[in-house]
Amino acid sequence: MIIDLINHIGMFFFAISGILTAADKGMDLLGGIFIAFITSFGGGTMRDLLLNVEIEWLKSLSYISIVFAGSIIGIIFRERVKQFRRTFFIFDTVGIGLFAIYGVEKSLSLGHFPAVAIFLGVITATFGGVLRDVLCNEIPLIFRKEIYATACLSGGILYYLLVKIELLSPEFNAIIAALFVMFIRVLAVIKKWQMPQIREISKW
Amino acid sequence: MIIDLINHIGMFFFAISGILTAADKGMDLLGGIFIAFITSFGGGTMRDLLLNVEIEWLKSLSYISIVFAGSIIGIIFRERVKQFRRTFFIFDTVGIGLFAIYGVEKSLSLGHFPAVAIFLGVITATFGGVLRDVLCNEIPLIFRKEIYATACLSGGILYYLLVKIELLSPEFNAIIAALFVMFIRVLAVIKKWQMPQIREISKW
Amino acid sequence: MIIDLINHIGMFFFAISGILTAADKGMDLLGGIFIAFITSFGGGTMRDLLLNVEIEWLKSLSYISIVFAGSIIGIIFRERVKQFRRTFFIFDTVGIGLFAIYGVEKSLSLGHFPAVAIFLGVITATFGGVLRDVLCNEIPLIFRKEIYATACLSGGILYYLLVKIELLSPEFNAIIAALFVMFIRVLAVIKKWQMPQIREISKW
Repeated sequence: MIIDLINHIGMFFFAISGILTAADKGMDLLGGIFIAFITSFGGGTMRDLLLNVEIEWLKSLSYISIVFAGSIIGIIFRERVKQFRRTFFIFDTVGIGLFAIYGVEKSLSLGHFPAVAIFLGVITATFGGVLRDVLCNEIPLIFRKEIYATACLSGGILYYLLVKIELLSPEFNAIIAALFVMFIRVLAVIKKWQMPQIREISKW
Repeated sequence: MIIDLINHIGMFFFAISGILTAADKGMDLLGGIFIAFITSFGGGTMRDLLLNVEIEWLKSLSYISIVFAGSIIGIIFRERVKQFRRTFFIFDTVGIGLFAIYGVEKSLSLGHFPAVAIFLGVITATFGGVLRDVLCNEIPLIFRKEIYATACLSGGILYYLLVKIELLSPEFNAIIAALFVMFIRVLAVIKKWQMPQIREISKW
Repeated sequence: MIIDLINHIGMFFFAISGILTAADKGMDLLGGIFIAFITSFGGGTMRDLLLNVEIEWLKSLSYISIVFAGSIIGIIFRERVKQFRRTFFIFDTVGIGLFAIYGVEKSLSLGHFPAVAIFLGVITATFGGVLRDVLCNEIPLIFRKEIYATACLSGGILYYLLVKIELLSPEFNAIIAALFVMFIRVLAVIKKWQMPQIREISKW
């Protein structure tokens, strides 16, 4: 199942983003692996708690294994890359793209409202990163001025529309929507897109 | 059902308190709406997770709609009010009054111990605000020197006693107890009531 | 059942560690009791949410009672002890030792993988303390340089091995493993053991 593969790859990428952040903060080995687990498992755990279904990573050892693998590769990989910010950005962006769509898909398949499913997609994509940033004492990325949650939101809406029109196979729908999330986020950073502040809006 | 109405009005007021705090912190539109959702849904979500019942806002679109409405009204409303602190205080106080009683009612109706139900009422009322304050980088209101949790606690106890003596209709019990929570909190701020510090107590 | 007794004693010790931290931060009475509850209930609540079983402290009033008792004893006890750091350390260490083993035991008895059970043991032992430290605005102990999670992890593995070889009675297995966690933690502090930083590892 491609949806399951997307979930595993997302966890792998988030594990690397977690261990890179922890290393950057001078954390020790176990602390860093702990952060990698929280980054990878956080969003999906919150989604599954809200959906009242079994937590995924309790059901199979493949999840724990893939986060371990990501942590080790992140540690080895680390010295190779001089530009921490760019590397981190790539892994985080691929992670949110895959997780956003996986979250929408899982919620829709359990029969929830589209609006609820898209909201849970945003939670799946962002919650692990919020925990990572809070525990590493950073202001969560989602609250900084980049178009972050907006990318997940628009990708979730696109995915729902693609599923609804039934033009392509489910696999293609998921891949297109995930790439769309990543594309919006990359474009937003390059073009320096920002959402307006509430202060400014309420002056209109 | 009046209890259900109380829950919706509480969410509406908490959404406004959330978006006002976010606007005050210079957040952008989506970040502010995110904070409004967390403030409104946080306490009830934690209660429902602990009670192991379905999360309310997944079951009906009326919850998501009311938080959106509260966010938009908060943004429009914002420039009208010069005294941010007083406005925020009113919305936050009405929110905790309604949520505290709703939390006790729901837990009692599921057959839990009165002490557990009152504790869950305090969690319903305070948890969304704690998350709002932590994410906005404020020290949570509940830990500041105002009588905050104490108001919820005493209102919860009053509600339980009113239900137990069966003198009034359930609707009146709920309204009286919610008003009592708001009254205690307002009085505490006016009279500058404070709980003693542990340091002082342990010197007795 | 000795396992149940271990859980109650762990909660009692964590309540004292929570109220001592809150008192040290100048919190008031209700704020301090709130922190004591979160420290005692936090780890087990997270474990039970993940396991999708009923939250323990909702089922019996003995849990709420023991945390209240711990809070009161902590307040009385406080002025007797001049060396805050050492007293706090003892209560926190006994707490994590008992909770780590209880978490592994409960997860194993529900039929989970050993790796998952040991991970949930670490969460049971550490999560309440992480919440206590975050809410008291301290950097969580687990991320400081002491061998903290490592002690829980190695105790959890030892417990699983003891259960597997079936040499001793279940009670002895639990007590030996819990003492092992405390022993490792005390030894790590005395000997100033540290885990290597990720930065250093990735330079090898």
